[in-house]
Order: sequence, then C-alpha cells, then structure tokens
Amino acid sequence: MLRTNTCGELNLNDINKSVELCGWVQRSRDLGGMTFIDLRDRYGITQLVFNMETDSRLCEEARKLGREFVIRAKGTVAERSNKNLKIPTGEIEIIVQSLEVLNPSELPPFTIEDNTDGGDDLRMKYRYLDIRRNPVKEALLLRAKVAAETRVYLNDQKFAEVETPVLIKSTPEGARDFVVPSRMNPGEFYALPQSPQTFKQLLMVAGMDRYYQIVKCFRDEDLRADRQPEFTQIDCEMSFVGQEDVLSMFEGLIRQLFIKIKNTDIGTLPRMSYADAMKHYGNDKPDIRFEMKLKDIKTLTAGKNFKVFDDAQTVLAICAKGCAAYTRKQIDELTDWVKRPQIGANGMVYLRVNADGTFKSSVDKFYGEEDLKKWAEACDASGGDLILILAGEENKTRKGMSELRLEMGERLGLRDRTTFKALWVTDFPLLEYSEEHKRWHAMHHPFTSPKPEDMEKLSSDPGSVRANAYDMVINGVEVGGGSIRIHDKSLQQKMFSILGFSDEDALAQFGFLMNAFRYGAPPHGGIAFGFDRLCSLFGGSDSIRDYIAFPKNNSGRDVMIDSPSQISSEQLAELKLRVESAKDSV
Amino acid sequence: MLRTNTCGELNLNDINKSVELCGWVQRSRDLGGMTFIDLRDRYGITQLVFNMETDSRLCEEARKLGREFVIRAKGTVAERSNKNLKIPTGEIEIIVQSLEVLNPSELPPFTIEDNTDGGDDLRMKYRYLDIRRNPVKEALLLRAKVAAETRVYLNDQKFAEVETPVLIKSTPEGARDFVVPSRMNPGEFYALPQSPQTFKQLLMVAGMDRYYQIVKCFRDEDLRADRQPEFTQIDCEMSFVGQEDVLSMFEGLIRQLFIKIKNTDIGTLPRMSYADAMKHYGNDKPDIRFEMKLKDIKTLTAGKNFKVFDDAQTVLAICAKGCAAYTRKQIDELTDWVKRPQIGANGMVYLRVNADGTFKSSVDKFYGEEDLKKWAEACDASGGDLILILAGEENKTRKGMSELRLEMGERLGLRDRTTFKALWVTDFPLLEYSEEHKRWHAMHHPFTSPKPEDMEKLSSDPGSVRANAYDMVINGVEVGGGSIRIHDKSLQQKMFSILGFSDEDALAQFGFLMNAFRYGAPPHGGIAFGFDRLCSLFGGSDSIRDYIAFPKNNSGRDVMIDSPSQISSEQLAELKLRVESAKDSV
Repeated sequence: MLRTNTCGELNLNDINKSVELCGWVQRSRDLGGMTFIDLRDRYGITQLVFNMETDSRLCEEARKLGREFVIRAKGTVAERSNKNLKIPTGEIEIIVQSLEVLNPSELPPFTIEDNTDGGDDLRMKYRYLDIRRNPVKEALLLRAKVAAETRVYLNDQKFAEVETPVLIKSTPEGARDFVVPSRMNPGEFYALPQSPQTFKQLLMVAGMDRYYQIVKCFRDEDLRADRQPEFTQIDCEMSFVGQEDVLSMFEGLIRQLFIKIKNTDIGTLPRMSYADAMKHYGNDKPDIRFEMKLKDIKTLTAGKNFKVFDDAQTVLAICAKGCAAYTRKQIDELTDWVKRPQIGANGMVYLRVNADGTFKSSVDKFYGEEDLKKWAEACDASGGDLILILAGEENKTRKGMSELRLEMGERLGLRDRTTFKALWVTDFPLLEYSEEHKRWHAMHHPFTSPKPEDMEKLSSDPGSVRANAYDMVINGVEVGGGSIRIHDKSLQQKMFSILGFSDEDALAQFGFLMNAFRYGAPPHGGIAFGFDRLCSLFGGSDSIRDYIAFPKNNSGRDVMIDSPSQISSEQLAELKLRVESAKDSV
Repeated sequence: MLRTNTCGELNLNDINKSVELCGWVQRSRDLGGMTFIDLRDRYGITQLVFNMETDSRLCEEARKLGREFVIRAKGTVAERSNKNLKIPTGEIEIIVQSLEVLNPSELPPFTIEDNTDGGDDLRMKYRYLDIRRNPVKEALLLRAKVAAETRVYLNDQKFAEVETPVLIKSTPEGARDFVVPSRMNPGEFYALPQSPQTFKQLLMVAGMDRYYQIVKCFRDEDLRADRQPEFTQIDCEMSFVGQEDVLSMFEGLIRQLFIKIKNTDIGTLPRMSYADAMKHYGNDKPDIRFEMKLKDIKTLTAGKNFKVFDDAQTVLAICAKGCAAYTRKQIDELTDWVKRPQIGANGMVYLRVNADGTFKSSVDKFYGEEDLKKWAEACDASGGDLILILAGEENKTRKGMSELRLEMGERLGLRDRTTFKALWVTDFPLLEYSEEHKRWHAMHHPFTSPKPEDMEKLSSDPGSVRANAYDMVINGVEVGGGSIRIHDKSLQQKMFSILGFSDEDALAQFGFLMNAFRYGAPPHGGIAFGFDRLCSLFGGSDSIRDYIAFPKNNSGRDVMIDSPSQISSEQLAELKLRVESAKDSV
C-alpha cells in the first residue's frame, strides 16, 4: 500500500506514530513560517504541517501544490495546538518528513466543497469530480449501506438472491421497452426488463420459495424530472403466503433499514384502504406526517343558491391550522397557485375561523353564520384556523385538493424530512378503464390476483373488483408496491381476456408463464421497492439523481461519456439494420 | 403463512407437534392400508402418512394426488418406524389430518429427480421445472451463497458497492457490443457494457477508494460452448495500491470463499510468471494439480539425423508416470488424438522407460541408449514411466503439448474436482501483435500499465514490454484477471497511439477518461472475477449453465421465453429503424 492509514482515522491515540497518507489537496494555507495542507480521501481530512524553519525545501515544495493534486506524505502524528473538534481527526496533525506528488491536477471546473459553485450541467459532465464532494460521496455510500442491510435482512429470512436475465422479450403491456437487436438472429430483438416480474414468478413455480434481487430495470419513457431510463429495484417474491404474510415480512425489512440506517424505529405501519386514502387525502400515496384531511362538505353547501357549489360534483375543504391571519394577498396568491394549469381549479373559496368564533369567508353573501359554523365543525376547525375549499368535478377536485394540502403542509413546515411516517395502502382496484384505449387496464399488472370475495364481479362489474395489491408509502412517496399473484391458469387466462388480449396474443407473449402454471404453481406474492427513491428518502433528498453514481439527464443522455451516440455503419450492417433518415420517412 | 414449517426442518424434537406443510408431491406409495407421500419444498422432503383404517376418505383423496401437485397438509409429527437416516427429516413423518390441493399439475415432461430422463433441450424449455431438481436448485443456492460471502468480505474491507450504468457507449476496442437504439435520440445508440472498466476507473478518480460490484456484462460474440451473451462479474478496483496489494487483497477473498463455501483452506497462492507458465505448462492458465511439466529436449535430440526433430523449432516432452505398460494400441490412439485438427500435430514420439532400466522408443534407429537416457533424465522419468514427445513450430507445439498434458492428467485421474490448486500468473506481455489487423493489441486492455522497468522499450520493442497484469488461475481455469492501471494522461495517450488509435478516435471514445486524468487521478488497480465460472468451479462442474437461473443456448436464444423475437412495426417506426430484408442487402 502507498499508505499506512487513511485520512479519516488518526487521533490522539496515534501520537508519535510514523505514518504515510495519500489523498487529494483540499486546501492549503500559507502562514509565513508554516504551511498547512488539508489532505482529503474518502474517509476524511487530515492536516499536514510543513515548517519553513525545520525544512524549507520541503515547505516550499508543499507551497507549490495546487488544489486536487494527488499526493503521498510521510510524517509523524502530533497533537494540534489549535484543535478542530468538529472532525474525528481534528485533534492531530502530521509533521511531514517527505512528500511525493502522485499526480498533479488542473484547476477543477468547480470547487470540491459541500456547497459548490458548479451548476448541475457542469457537475454532471464532470461527475467524477462531483462525487469527490461530501454530499454526493455520502449519498453513494448511503446507497451501498442500504443495499448491504437489505441483503442482511433478506438473507436472514432465507431469501435467495437469484439473477434473472437482462436480455429478455419485448411485451406491449406496460411502458415502452428498450430493445436490443440480435446479430445472431437477424430481424429479431431482445428487450431489457421493465421488471423481472415473470421471472420471479417462474422462480416460485420452480420451488425457489423466497427470491430477491437488487436489480437494474429499464423503461423507455419520455423522462419527467427525476425519472431515469435505468433504475434499480429491490425485487422480492415468496411462496405459500397470503397478503398479510408479505406485508409483515417487508414491514420488517423497512423497520430494520430505518433502525440500521437512521437509528430510528418507525414502529408498526398503519394500513389504509385505497378508498380511504382517496377520500381523506385525495391521493393513493398519502403523506401522513400531518393531518389536514380532505372533508367533503357538498351536502352542507347545498341549496343556498351558490351556483358554483350547487353545480359542482364535489365540494372539498381542508383546515389549515392557525392560518386565519393569512392576508388577502396570501390568499390571492394561493388562489393563483390552484388556478395554474397543473391543478386547473376555477377558483378557491376560503373561510377564516376567527379567534373570537366569528367567520369571514369569500362566500358570505350566500352562507350565514350557521352554515359556516357547520363547515368549520366538519373540518374540525377552531379559532385561528383557515379553511380552504375547492369545488368541481370529483376526480380533478380531489386531485387538486391533495396538491393544495401538500402545499399547505410544506408552507406550514409539517413535512419535516427528518420525520418518517410509513403506511401500507391496500385494497387497490384491480382494473382501471382507459378512455383512450377503450378497454380495461391492470392497475398494478396483469398478474395481480383479485380479492376472492370480489371474484364474482369480475365479469359483471370489473371496475368494482379490488385486488390483493398493496403499496408502501413513506412521507407521501410510494417506495414499494406489490401483490398476491394469480397462480391459477384459467384465472390468468380470464384476466388476459378482460385486458383485451386475444388468446393468440396472450400465448405469444406470456405462453411460458401460462405453461408454467400447468405444472403446479404455488400460491405466491411479492413486492418491489424503488431502490433509488428509497435511498433518496433515507438521505432526506427529493432528487434520486444524487443517489445514482452516473445518472442520465432528462433526455436520457449521459453527458459525461456523451451517450447515446452514433455507431459505425459496420455495426449497423452486421445487425441488418438501417437508420431511417428524415428523408426516408417522408 | 399457509404453513407452520418447511419440509426440511422437522425432526424427533418435534414429535406430537401439530404442523402444516406445503409443497410438491415428489412421489406417492400406496401400500394397501397405508399411503405414503414424499412432500418436497426447497428445504427438503418430509413423509406424509395416510391410513385407510383411521380415515379412508382422506386416504383415498391422497391416492388421487399426482406427481408435482401442490398441496397443503395439516397433521401431527410422529416417529417413523422405518427410519431414513440419509435425510435430516428421515426419522419422522406426518400423520395427516387434512389435505388441500393448492394446485394440480399435469404430468411434467421429465422426471423431477437428481438423474432426470429429460434431455438438455427439454430441460431448458421447461427451466422452471428443471430448477425443481436438486442439482440445479443447489447450484443456484450455491451461487447466492458465493455472492453473499463475497459481499461480506469486500464490505469488511471497506469496498463500497456502486452500481455503474448499463446503458453506456459503444467502443470498437475489444469484443462486439450489444447496442440499444435510443428513441429519444433517433439514429443514436447506447451500448451494453462488456465490463464497467472505465466507470470503475472514474470512481477511483472520484475518490471512492475501494469499489466493487457483482454486475451483469454483455458480449455479442459468436457463442462457443459454455459462453453466454450475458454473464456476471465480481468487479473490483482500489486506489493507492501496487500489484502486491491487489494480489494480497483478492487472494484473501478467494481463500475466505473456499473456507466458507468448501470448508477448505487453499493456503497461500504461488506466483508464476507468464513466461514460466508458457515454458513449463505451455499455457497461461496452468493446471497445477499435477506436475508433468513440459521439457524442452531439442538440444538433446540434435544431430542424430532424425529429420523430424532436426527440422523442428522445438521438441517437447512430458513424462506420464507409470505408463510404460501402455500398449501399442493405446499409444496409437494417443497419436491419433494429437493428430486431430484441434491439435494438429504431425505425429507423436514415445519413449518407454522400462522397469529394468532399458528403453524402447519409436525412434530407436536414430537414438542410442545413451541419448534416450538423457531424455529420461531431463524428464525426471524413472522405470515404469512413459515419455511422450511432440515436435514442430514453437507456439503450436507448446499449445499441443499443453493439451496432451491435460489429457494425460485427465486419463491418469490427476484432475480431481474436489482438489483445488490456485495460483497467480503474473508479468503478462502488455501487447500482442495481430497479424490479421497488422497492429498491436492490448493483451489485457488499453488501460493496463506497463512495468516501470520495461517502460523505455515501449517504443523500441513493444512486444517485450511486460504489464502489471495478473490472472488468478484455479485448476487450469482463469477465474479472474486484472491489472494496475495507467493513471497518467500522457502515458494513456501514448498507449492509445501504440494501439493504432488516432488522437481523434481516442478522444471520441475515451475522452471522458482522458479528461478525468487531468484532475488528479490516483494510482489504482483492480481485478474482475468471472462469477459464473467461479460458481461452477465451487460446484465441481464444467458447465456454467447450471449456475445461471435462465441461461441462453448457443445461438443466444432463451428457448423458454422464445427470445429474441420480432418486435412490432410501431416499435421499429418509433426507433426510426428499418430491418433490412435479404432482398435489400442484395
């Protein structure tokens, strides 16, 4: 080794030891007679000291070192007179006896500091420098730790990690596949997996009993902010279980991760049905760090000639605690906020519940004190609170109110990133109707089993059938979701038929799974966690990008390596492919 | 859970317990008054008992169960009168009280037994049934264990697992890339990584210090037997190290794996230079489970008018201990073996060293007793041994002799699969000349550093420059290889230039790495192990396929899911691609 120690481990116990350290020059201070250099590596920072009086040649060498030079220093550990108790190595320094420049560095395009002067684009282009910064480095180390602890838990529970193939088969269900042309089978393509769903089910048929994998998945979607074309899942499946068994197993995983990573026990996870989540939060991933539930006050507003409410399919209210003092300007600003196209409300009604018990609302001319009092009661509002009301078409209003609730939670500081509230959302609808495609879609995926008690409605009233499906939601973020699967061949066939697959299509695309079900498929179910998202949640960040070593931008481009890129005509010829020019497609 | 226990854990301590088990019907025996069923799950087999006298209805139900039916049985643990001490559950049985068929099964296309009647093709098509068989299931569980123990060791050594991207950039160096068309960037392609080589080097530049990843890699090669288009590597890299540090770290990994997986300490790994390996074994991955080294007897054979030897560039001999009694027929058969096109020798000369000290050879008319005695001495042969001799062009003869040595080792039972002999092969040549391309190729890869003492020959005599490169070889199989990398920009530039890259090409393909080297790249090096191969070695098998859950066949096809396959014209249109028909390419 070029070093005896790292830059993060020497302390007062090491005084007088001869050591060799390697690392990068973080900063250099020249105080006339003395030169101090902060030497950085992954593990920390250690101060190097050079003294003009004792070794002027060496000291002058040290003064020539630029930022990010890679050096190796031999010296002796000494106690610092000027201690820095904020870092573990802050009580010692190294009196350097010899110095070697292992590699010089040009001045980096941005500063390697926690708060850098580099913008996003520059940092992405020089990602290898960005990772030198503490926040990014720590994010990647956190990710490694979450993966390691996940494996410890699952291995303990007898889950076997099994790798499923990356070169698989394209299926039209779900999002768009990335495809890979096969040179050995010209005109044919592999697809990259959107998830190992069918393979993990086959592993259950194969008797593997408990499977997991921390695995890359791929989706060729138009990228929204903070979506990546390749992402990582913790993918799990178990046999001979019901829904409760799966929930309890993976509640255990998440609790253990919080204990190991955040040193906090999040306790037992509450359960909430999809119907309740939509009713109380307008959202199937409710942020339950704060209350402010949606209240339907439609009946309380009826018949007073306020056309907006009377014509509305629904009238929803939330109570913002202690906000009665909001100024007209603040309320107008909120009204503009809900009128933005992203939410699209026509307006917002407010009701101030004054400290003295009186009311002030924007619809005073339609509603008397008695009406407003009922609204306030319905919202559990007390003096000093502000009630905000949206009205209109059911789905849109509920969605808009959910957004407004989250916004108010944010403004009121109720969404603290160091507080974690997890829950299970259960009893999702099995199907949702696509107006665009004029057919039913699987809300989770086509392999999810209906609830046995709803089975008879599968033909008569598909929309009302609930699934054995569940999501884990933490702080308003869906971190994982899964279901108990269909293991019966005829039910799976029926499902494909409800989803509009012809028998031929079902056979062509999922024949291998249907075939497998002929040979003794056990009851099974599982879950997949979004690993990037989970890491960003543990790290207290909204962005998954910092938790991915080499992420792509919103055009699916890696700006560091400049990919995707053109390939040679020889490569195309070998693949028997031709790229259509704009001309061809006219 | 549908069960209280698995089929692998109940024993005499559980007598009289009420239990529920789930699993597959392995076999059923109807002995008139009693019916016995072997119930199988991942963990083992437990015997279920049904009694006509005590419950005839249940017993008759049990008799209807077919092979591979999935069932759930409730009952009581009882001591068996007829114990089977070969399995952990063999001292008990379950007196069944109730039975539920969770899923029936058609008769599987082959028997689910250790020695199945299913051929390779059938087993691959029904891989989910093949995995139910013990040898395949155990292979996958072994793989999971090797991965878990690898992570334990590397995590302990402060290696951080970092995921590198799968959608990267195509580079012409090395094998052929799989490419992935980008819909969002029409006409452009990602490539799937042949290894994360450049990314792990960038992680060193990024200061991650110690990186690893158990990661899928991809190569679009014409598949030889036992090659897979997607394969898995244990990929590792370290900073601030020299070659000895890397060797010692990963020797530690392999020793620990052997201790954990095979319960055996393989001890310190010997080192052998590439030159010595070629000299003594004719092979850079010598199988050192047995001696039988190659001996160059050219000088001992010269000048006796035997034209074959006199004209040969080299004359090589090996000594097959105790084989002097080989019959003429056996020797003729060996001669035919070396004359096959795969080896292509023109013939083989033998020398019997008889027990009485006399000699008998096929070239007696050219060489006297004294000559032959010298040959025997050179080969350390004693009475009863047989010396086999090949002559001809140096490389071909050495390669042929290596094959003959391995064949003789096999025939003499010297290549026992339960004995493990590992070594490091070091000091590989940096470059090899390609007659086909009329230029130098990197023997390892273009990022491997030359030995400092050979650096000056880089321009004058590139072929003689040795690399800081090393392979780990176990039982004649290369399980891993790596190198100390170049971390100096100008040396890397020089390397690209020697390899025939124009400056523009080097910049276009590896500009990001060259750029990174401008900002303080630390000295670094690493290794990658072929994980599939390593697992098959631990499992004592020659085939990596059994250690991959869903392998592809020699045409790169997954016959279970029938992939690759055609994709829809809509998909092609979105990708702006056209498949050339045979007609187009005329």
